[in-house]
Amino acid sequence: MGKQFDAAEVAKHTTPDSCWVILYGKVYDVTNFLAEHPGGAKIILKLAGKDATEEYDPIHPPGILEENLPAEALLGTVNPDTLPQTQTELAPSNVNKEGPPPMESLLNLEEIEQVATKNISNKAWAYYFSASDDKVSKSFNTEVYRSIVLRPRVFVDCSQCDLDTTTLGQKLNTPIYVAPAAMARLGNPAGEAGIAEACRSFGAMQIISNNASMTPEQIVKDAAPDQVFGWQIYVQIDRKKSEAMLARINKIKQIKFIVLTLDAPVPGKREDDERNNFVGASAPVPSGTKRAEDAVEAGDSPGGVGRTLFAGTDPTLTWRETLPWLAKHTDLPIILKGLQTHEDAYIASLHTPQIKGIILSNHGGRALDTAPPAVHTLLEIRKFCPEVFDRLDVLVDGGIRRGTDVVKALCLGAKAVGIGRPALFGLGAGGVEGVKRTLQILCDETKTCMRLLGVERVEDLGPQHINTRLVEQQIYDGPSGLESIRSAFRAKL
Amino acid sequence: MGKQFDAAEVAKHTTPDSCWVILYGKVYDVTNFLAEHPGGAKIILKLAGKDATEEYDPIHPPGILEENLPAEALLGTVNPDTLPQTQTELAPSNVNKEGPPPMESLLNLEEIEQVATKNISNKAWAYYFSASDDKVSKSFNTEVYRSIVLRPRVFVDCSQCDLDTTTLGQKLNTPIYVAPAAMARLGNPAGEAGIAEACRSFGAMQIISNNASMTPEQIVKDAAPDQVFGWQIYVQIDRKKSEAMLARINKIKQIKFIVLTLDAPVPGKREDDERNNFVGASAPVPSGTKRAEDAVEAGDSPGGVGRTLFAGTDPTLTWRETLPWLAKHTDLPIILKGLQTHEDAYIASLHTPQIKGIILSNHGGRALDTAPPAVHTLLEIRKFCPEVFDRLDVLVDGGIRRGTDVVKALCLGAKAVGIGRPALFGLGAGGVEGVKRTLQILCDETKTCMRLLGVERVEDLGPQHINTRLVEQQIYDGPSGLESIRSAFRAKL
Amino acid sequence: MGKQFDAAEVAKHTTPDSCWVILYGKVYDVTNFLAEHPGGAKIILKLAGKDATEEYDPIHPPGILEENLPAEALLGTVNPDTLPQTQTELAPSNVNKEGPPPMESLLNLEEIEQVATKNISNKAWAYYFSASDDKVSKSFNTEVYRSIVLRPRVFVDCSQCDLDTTTLGQKLNTPIYVAPAAMARLGNPAGEAGIAEACRSFGAMQIISNNASMTPEQIVKDAAPDQVFGWQIYVQIDRKKSEAMLARINKIKQIKFIVLTLDAPVPGKREDDERNNFVGASAPVPSGTKRAEDAVEAGDSPGGVGRTLFAGTDPTLTWRETLPWLAKHTDLPIILKGLQTHEDAYIASLHTPQIKGIILSNHGGRALDTAPPAVHTLLEIRKFCPEVFDRLDVLVDGGIRRGTDVVKALCLGAKAVGIGRPALFGLGAGGVEGVKRTLQILCDETKTCMRLLGVERVEDLGPQHINTRLVEQQIYDGPSGLESIRSAFRAKL
Amino acid sequence: MGKQFDAAEVAKHTTPDSCWVILYGKVYDVTNFLAEHPGGAKIILKLAGKDATEEYDPIHPPGILEENLPAEALLGTVNPDTLPQTQTELAPSNVNKEGPPPMESLLNLEEIEQVATKNISNKAWAYYFSASDDKVSKSFNTEVYRSIVLRPRVFVDCSQCDLDTTTLGQKLNTPIYVAPAAMARLGNPAGEAGIAEACRSFGAMQIISNNASMTPEQIVKDAAPDQVFGWQIYVQIDRKKSEAMLARINKIKQIKFIVLTLDAPVPGKREDDERNNFVGASAPVPSGTKRAEDAVEAGDSPGGVGRTLFAGTDPTLTWRETLPWLAKHTDLPIILKGLQTHEDAYIASLHTPQIKGIILSNHGGRALDTAPPAVHTLLEIRKFCPEVFDRLDVLVDGGIRRGTDVVKALCLGAKAVGIGRPALFGLGAGGVEGVKRTLQILCDETKTCMRLLGVERVEDLGPQHINTRLVEQQIYDGPSGLESIRSAFRAKL
Repeated sequence: MGKQFDAAEVAKHTTPDSCWVILYGKVYDVTNFLAEHPGGAKIILKLAGKDATEEYDPIHPPGILEENLPAEALLGTVNPDTLPQTQTELAPSNVNKEGPPPMESLLNLEEIEQVATKNISNKAWAYYFSASDDKVSKSFNTEVYRSIVLRPRVFVDCSQCDLDTTTLGQKLNTPIYVAPAAMARLGNPAGEAGIAEACRSFGAMQIISNNASMTPEQIVKDAAPDQVFGWQIYVQIDRKKSEAMLARINKIKQIKFIVLTLDAPVPGKREDDERNNFVGASAPVPSGTKRAEDAVEAGDSPGGVGRTLFAGTDPTLTWRETLPWLAKHTDLPIILKGLQTHEDAYIASLHTPQIKGIILSNHGGRALDTAPPAVHTLLEIRKFCPEVFDRLDVLVDGGIRRGTDVVKALCLGAKAVGIGRPALFGLGAGGVEGVKRTLQILCDETKTCMRLLGVERVEDLGPQHINTRLVEQQIYDGPSGLESIRSAFRAKL
Repeated sequence: MGKQFDAAEVAKHTTPDSCWVILYGKVYDVTNFLAEHPGGAKIILKLAGKDATEEYDPIHPPGILEENLPAEALLGTVNPDTLPQTQTELAPSNVNKEGPPPMESLLNLEEIEQVATKNISNKAWAYYFSASDDKVSKSFNTEVYRSIVLRPRVFVDCSQCDLDTTTLGQKLNTPIYVAPAAMARLGNPAGEAGIAEACRSFGAMQIISNNASMTPEQIVKDAAPDQVFGWQIYVQIDRKKSEAMLARINKIKQIKFIVLTLDAPVPGKREDDERNNFVGASAPVPSGTKRAEDAVEAGDSPGGVGRTLFAGTDPTLTWRETLPWLAKHTDLPIILKGLQTHEDAYIASLHTPQIKGIILSNHGGRALDTAPPAVHTLLEIRKFCPEVFDRLDVLVDGGIRRGTDVVKALCLGAKAVGIGRPALFGLGAGGVEGVKRTLQILCDETKTCMRLLGVERVEDLGPQHINTRLVEQQIYDGPSGLESIRSAFRAKL
Repeated sequence: MGKQFDAAEVAKHTTPDSCWVILYGKVYDVTNFLAEHPGGAKIILKLAGKDATEEYDPIHPPGILEENLPAEALLGTVNPDTLPQTQTELAPSNVNKEGPPPMESLLNLEEIEQVATKNISNKAWAYYFSASDDKVSKSFNTEVYRSIVLRPRVFVDCSQCDLDTTTLGQKLNTPIYVAPAAMARLGNPAGEAGIAEACRSFGAMQIISNNASMTPEQIVKDAAPDQVFGWQIYVQIDRKKSEAMLARINKIKQIKFIVLTLDAPVPGKREDDERNNFVGASAPVPSGTKRAEDAVEAGDSPGGVGRTLFAGTDPTLTWRETLPWLAKHTDLPIILKGLQTHEDAYIASLHTPQIKGIILSNHGGRALDTAPPAVHTLLEIRKFCPEVFDRLDVLVDGGIRRGTDVVKALCLGAKAVGIGRPALFGLGAGGVEGVKRTLQILCDETKTCMRLLGVERVEDLGPQHINTRLVEQQIYDGPSGLESIRSAFRAKL
Repeated sequence: MGKQFDAAEVAKHTTPDSCWVILYGKVYDVTNFLAEHPGGAKIILKLAGKDATEEYDPIHPPGILEENLPAEALLGTVNPDTLPQTQTELAPSNVNKEGPPPMESLLNLEEIEQVATKNISNKAWAYYFSASDDKVSKSFNTEVYRSIVLRPRVFVDCSQCDLDTTTLGQKLNTPIYVAPAAMARLGNPAGEAGIAEACRSFGAMQIISNNASMTPEQIVKDAAPDQVFGWQIYVQIDRKKSEAMLARINKIKQIKFIVLTLDAPVPGKREDDERNNFVGASAPVPSGTKRAEDAVEAGDSPGGVGRTLFAGTDPTLTWRETLPWLAKHTDLPIILKGLQTHEDAYIASLHTPQIKGIILSNHGGRALDTAPPAVHTLLEIRKFCPEVFDRLDVLVDGGIRRGTDVVKALCLGAKAVGIGRPALFGLGAGGVEGVKRTLQILCDETKTCMRLLGVERVEDLGPQHINTRLVEQQIYDGPSGLESIRSAFRAKL
């Protein structure tokens, strides 16, 4: 580490044959790493010869640099006086100069999102806010809850009310959990560990994203002994990497289950995210759209943050192959995330006990636009194969913005209700305090709703507390695949 | 009362250990009263050491101060010259400098609300306008009437038309009544007595709010001998207080029935109201949201005006306990307000003759957002247990803005139709004349509608006069609790 | 007529005891006429002592002054030099200084309405544009047509297409007719005679309003020998007046039938119209709303233009009394206008041959807001008692703005389709040429639609050419009064 | 060509008796051609005496001038110095001075349309953008796709996905084809040949418009040997012209089928197009509306570009006459375009093998407003006569803007999905590169959607992949003409 370079010297190495970058004041030769980079070579070449710290830091877990580069890649340090003055550029373009208002003055999740929007970088906003195509599913996720009417019962003692519940065999103080939302440090340096700190205060479960900007070990470091985490896996084409990761996860005692995400085997088309990348990039970037296909076929994807995260993800997963492979590498129960039809929910219910639960999700509207909201899938299961609710814990996420939304999902049979964007926007608005405020508002609203329905405990909520007549008129009424699934399953026995 | 204090001296007493306030030029030591204040200690402490008259006056009935404070609490008078000059601050921020236009130039309730909005303080506006969460129920309350189509019959002599009707055994000149809307003096000094004066002109019934800013005796003072009032009770945790109040009510001959409000056992989340409180407050206030829970659990709620009113309300009321308790303390018939399901309407119909009527209401959308409008509950009762209409008088409130809305509710079986906000906005727009104008417009519109339907008398309106096809497609179609209610009732016999 | 007065002298006579007005340069003493004025005394008193020509002229048929005032009422002439200079005030406030664009540049009825809106006085605009309450029915009248989907058939020779049709026994060149819209001279001096001139060019039928601003004789004066008119009657409380009018009508050979309007036995609440009156009035006017009731009960109505027209109208008409009375005074067939339920359509069909047709109409949304559009009533008749179409000619009006709207009404069984506002706006936009342009656009659009449906003649249009699935889901499904109507009718036989 | 004229000399010949025009620097006497011009005489007379090149060029195929005018019509050349300076006028009024952004920065078809809108002339924009009446059908074409919900299946290997398909017996690399959109050179000089070049890159089929601004031979000139084209015919009143054209088409080996357009036997009313013509015209033009009728009856139509194209089109086509006539003049299979009812689809299926396919289309909403979108017709056929899908290839166009739209149409039974406006806007935005970008985005989105549904090949898409519950509630439920069609067909056998 002895040698000190001038920035001008580093700036000469910008090609696939000799590619240097500056990170945290050190100079690395990453030429040999280009082919291995999960995010593709091009994104590194764009930053070649420059100080890449600002771009690199918020999306990579600390320590991963040392893990992935051989010692000889570290060439020395950069002479800080030779670096261009970039302090003003470092400021995100829409930073809120006066800082956010006190969290306790924010009264609902919408206000928190507005504050976060002014408070975080465009890049973070675009990644958090974006959804696929025209955001039809993203909007519908929330609107569908508003079209369900509540049925409050009166003359019921509602002095007592608590949110304690048991999900996936775990005791929790609230049915509200944090869904696996990636890249928390883009919004606030507290990152996923900050979310964990907030969850600790509320006895809430957290599912750690496969693409977290901190390692699982860092995230659970200050957790309470009985705090509950899940860990989300995107299975890599290079299975060895996933197996190594599972081995690490198996050792973390607060991680109680593995969440296998199935609703995004290939990246959706998130235009806000891609547009931000294009506008902000120093060099023109090939269209994310074209790249989406390339990404799958060539393992290279220099689009927005979202696409980068998909690099290396295995699109070949199947019931037959993937579940046995997982069983070989972990004893933890498996939760399948991203089911959107009653058929898939039913198949999952045939795979107990390895599969202990399912999460109905359209990936926050980020994968396939006009995919159904979780409420649709809940009602579809109730219509075609309600026995699924007896065999598995069914969780949902997507569109939850009010306590009444939480209650409605629980009435339809959900055991727990996940929030993704609200946790990230909470973090972006006010760090740990922002996430706490988010959870506090949602828990309080949920309890107020339960009291006004005349319900004391989460498990007492049922379909008699809601009027879903309008939504029922939208539920799938076509040919069901159940019969052929049952035949195939019987044949296999 | 001899001693005179300088304001500076009073300003030293601002703690729970020594708390003084100035009211109407007098200095009180309220330290010992802090724990008893129905609105909680904090709201007093915020005003400690200051002249609290402006905040106190419009929301407390005259005389209640002397009733609640021991003689020794009155320390003396304040030297008016030492008070800070606040005359400009006293003016509400959005006061209409030119005064409201002549009431007779206002053609509908929407215009009256617009005039009131410019004419009253932000605090009053926020309390009147606010509804829970996203105001979905508040909007739906009105919209649902617009989606009902009228069926006018022709070639009918419509030269005669009157609104006379009998409700709850009382002869009235109009089926339109004033619902129990609190805090009338916030909007105009004429207060609830002003509303009574307007009702007198129209032979309209008025239900006095439990949280009126005048005492019941003050409100009925100038009433006509045959004028009809109801009195709304929020049962207090300290039942003795409620019993004392009932004893007072029993003595007021114009009060013909007790309205027990059930749709708001805990406060809803009214963000406009809370936001106004936060913005206008001299000291930061803990979030109303969090406080809602505290309020229930700790009897303390320093949120908006709405929450303050709930302090001390008993959330443990039940069919089994509360009705017998009421029977012990009053012989007046009981009206249950806030029913929102056919099941609860049916249970109520099993409690005649003590229960003489029910009011279908979602509390003006102020309690639980996405709760059903009264039209939904009317149609639900017609669908599941129409016999309720034979056993009880069914009243409705919420969302009424046009005479056609009144007529539609009556066609569906309502005996009378309440207006809450419109009465308050009428009062805010033009005092007694504003309320009269509101009632006049609504009565005239109702008669015009009846004439054009070819109907002469209120009791001739029926389902054949309206087309509710669209709304029927939204009515609850899930499991009814009727069978288990009937079983339980038979078992009890 | 010899005496000449100074304006200052006239200005002294402004009371019910001595009321003078100036009209067309002459001075009249109208004191004794005050009680007889169909529009009420107050509206005259407002203009007492002044030159009332501008207000009087466009809403009264020429000659009616002489007809109604005794010779001695004419006191003399006014000295024109003594009149205040009011030429600028004479200009309507929103007059289009550059004049309207060439009519042939206007491509649809919406554009014509926009041009008329800039071209006519506020008073005329308010009268034409206004509808009752929130204009829900007015909007729905048009929107309901847009929700019907056409079913074009292909490979059909569409080289021939004409609009010839027979309605009410009359041969017409188009099924589009002009509905009885009042006060045409408010918009353009050509008035109802100008509409007749335009109708002549297109072989279109015209129904003359009872409140036309020209006499029937003036309107038909230049009509073609085979041009077809109907005459609308509002039966007066003073039946002698109506009988005299019928006697006049019986003598006009182009008037082939009498239209008895039933959908507005009392005036609806048209706020635009009333507001304009209030704003524009030189003296405060009691609210139209209150006055609506007065109008019915006391025969006095100083509200907007709309209410004035209702003065003296008889609200006691019935099947039993009114039809025989009409039969005594005219042999012309009777058309009932304003039916809005299948029950009333059915009753009408029991009164052939005196009743030859019915017009389904909600009075352009001007009578009762949220009344059903004619499309609803067409579908209701088709559902409950389609035999009505065999017994009577069914006409419709309300909301027609496109040729496709015309075609859809015809497909549902209408024999002809009326336009009211579009004729008045056409007149306001460009006089006779504007009405011609309106008819031309609508006829051309209708023919284009028929060709594209593959239909050559009006009588070949049928329900197989449209998809009304969406609207059918809104049609009344409640108790039908048909059975009791049939019983009553059988009993009478 | 020897003689040179001054512009002033040419300018004298502007009447039907002597009409000269300047085209490409040459002076022509077109007096004798006036009566023959398919677009009518008036449109030429408007340009008489002037340089008509700018108006003429983009809408006429090169060479057609020489083909249609006798040699003696060419009088000589114009002295260019005598022509008025019009270079600034030549620039389209809303030209984008900075030029369009790089195509790869555009992420969806909406952005491409926005760029094209700034980049092309008003005349081109009006022709491309316009649709009939109020554009209800145009909007609905797209919205109806958004109301269909997708049903993604999980745990399916989606590493493989391709768009190869066989339609009308032709192997194609994508089910997305370019519909017969006319006047491509209005938007970009590359014209229809440019579209062909883009289609070549994607293995996409192209249907050449009857009104292409280039000849079929020019369009296919650089096509790949296996590139697939169809040719659209509007049968002319003068059948000889159509027969001559068919003879030419029969010789072009890449043209594999004839598309007979049936949904626009007479021109629809496209107001944007007509308004542009009126505003931009040097002389007042009789209203397009009136002219629409004239066009059919008199063969003369000086309205917008759209109407001009219809001049001479035969409105008398029938199943009985036209198909045999076609069979005499071509052996190519016939595709019928513009079917909008299940009845017509069924009749078409009785005419195999001459008819090989049908295109469900409402002409992009350009013919009859409120005509049904292709999705409606697909569902109508599925409901009434699904056997049509076995007998014919069913194609659709209209409203496709997203890959999910393509997939939904394929799931409902379409074999291929056409884009019209998007191809023209792509061309207008960036020439060949713009069309390529359009196809690339749509193909990539389609593949992403298929992968996320878990579907590998086009032929595996089916109704089980979509939830059409909402749209099904809008599908025609009235009397079907099928039975009488079957009877008639049996009788004919």
